[in-house]
Amino acid sequence: MRDTYHEELDGISTSLVEMTNQVGSAMSRATTALLDADLTLAEMVISNDDAVDARYRDIEARAFDLLARQQPVASDLRVLVTSLRMVADLERMGDNAVHVAKIARRRYPMSAVPPTLRSTVLEMGNAAQEIVAKAGSVIAGRDIVMAAQLEKDDDVMDELHRQLFRQILDDSWSDGIEPAIDITLAGRYYERFADHAVSVARRVVYLVTGERVPALP
Amino acid sequence: MRDTYHEELDGISTSLVEMTNQVGSAMSRATTALLDADLTLAEMVISNDDAVDARYRDIEARAFDLLARQQPVASDLRVLVTSLRMVADLERMGDNAVHVAKIARRRYPMSAVPPTLRSTVLEMGNAAQEIVAKAGSVIAGRDIVMAAQLEKDDDVMDELHRQLFRQILDDSWSDGIEPAIDITLAGRYYERFADHAVSVARRVVYLVTGERVPALP
Repeated sequence: MRDTYHEELDGISTSLVEMTNQVGSAMSRATTALLDADLTLAEMVISNDDAVDARYRDIEARAFDLLARQQPVASDLRVLVTSLRMVADLERMGDNAVHVAKIARRRYPMSAVPPTLRSTVLEMGNAAQEIVAKAGSVIAGRDIVMAAQLEKDDDVMDELHRQLFRQILDDSWSDGIEPAIDITLAGRYYERFADHAVSVARRVVYLVTGERVPALP
Repeated sequence: MRDTYHEELDGISTSLVEMTNQVGSAMSRATTALLDADLTLAEMVISNDDAVDARYRDIEARAFDLLARQQPVASDLRVLVTSLRMVADLERMGDNAVHVAKIARRRYPMSAVPPTLRSTVLEMGNAAQEIVAKAGSVIAGRDIVMAAQLEKDDDVMDELHRQLFRQILDDSWSDGIEPAIDITLAGRYYERFADHAVSVARRVVYLVTGERVPALP
């Protein structure tokens, strides 16, 4: 049987996994809100961010409390400090979902996504879902094979991001400035969302292998 | 006379202040590169980011080492954990400067900034300088009055950011899609740079007052 201390340590990991589900769900709804000009869904993502922030503060407080009370060393210390980093990444992922939802709200009742970009944005939304789901599995199972797959998904996201720019900058673009700006920002939010998930996965790899986490671009 | 442990703790704080200078200088050069289409300066910002990242890793390693060796409690523990957070914010600020420099490089030998937006971008660059300089002072002096001033500067930055969008979306805009996208992204990088500086300042306020740091938007 595990002691209370290690149960608390495991509890933090469980909460981090739940937080990946939470921000994944936020980005999934934000994508639908963006594509379908669904104001209700957009508002839901925006107001639910309070719950993401509350979980962030809760995990932070628990990690800090364990650091102070238990004065862990070696691997437990590394797990706690890494958890503090991961929870910050996850909080930012929630913010990126909110930013996407706010674009949807700003353009309502129009859709911010011109028909020609619909499939690229949809694919970026799907890539975000796959990446965040993998991030949850990476945390839950300390799964470094899954972490490597996640990096590949992030390459796909980067390619979709480049494709988005090519489409906006193509001579055939006829949707004007405002949609170009909306989509430029939305593309950036998806790309950052994925980058933070990569960061989460790399921190787990570091915990497992001791291999230094490279800085994100 | 202070003991080695507290000297090491102070040394981390000093390095954080030096890092604010480093990323401030990077953003200053990136702004000049952007406005004047100065490729040499842009390349300098981009290649100097390795030094920013190296300092990030160095501060992180020293904080981690102190956590492991000294098992600090109460306020020292808070200082160290907060330092780990601040160094991550500062590293992101360096990345934002690089992103601005890359826009300058991408458009070289043209300037990415249309004449009509020159003064707004210049003001954003200046606001960034003031904010990052204050962030350094806030860390160095645990100065919560300066932290409040920094928040006001960030309001100025947000207003400049809104002004930028108004200018791009104005009917009189005649510079086309590509500059609109460049400026949209640049505006976002300045705004994030400032937000991370606000985050740094708020963490110092928390250290001094125990007052909870609100999440950034």
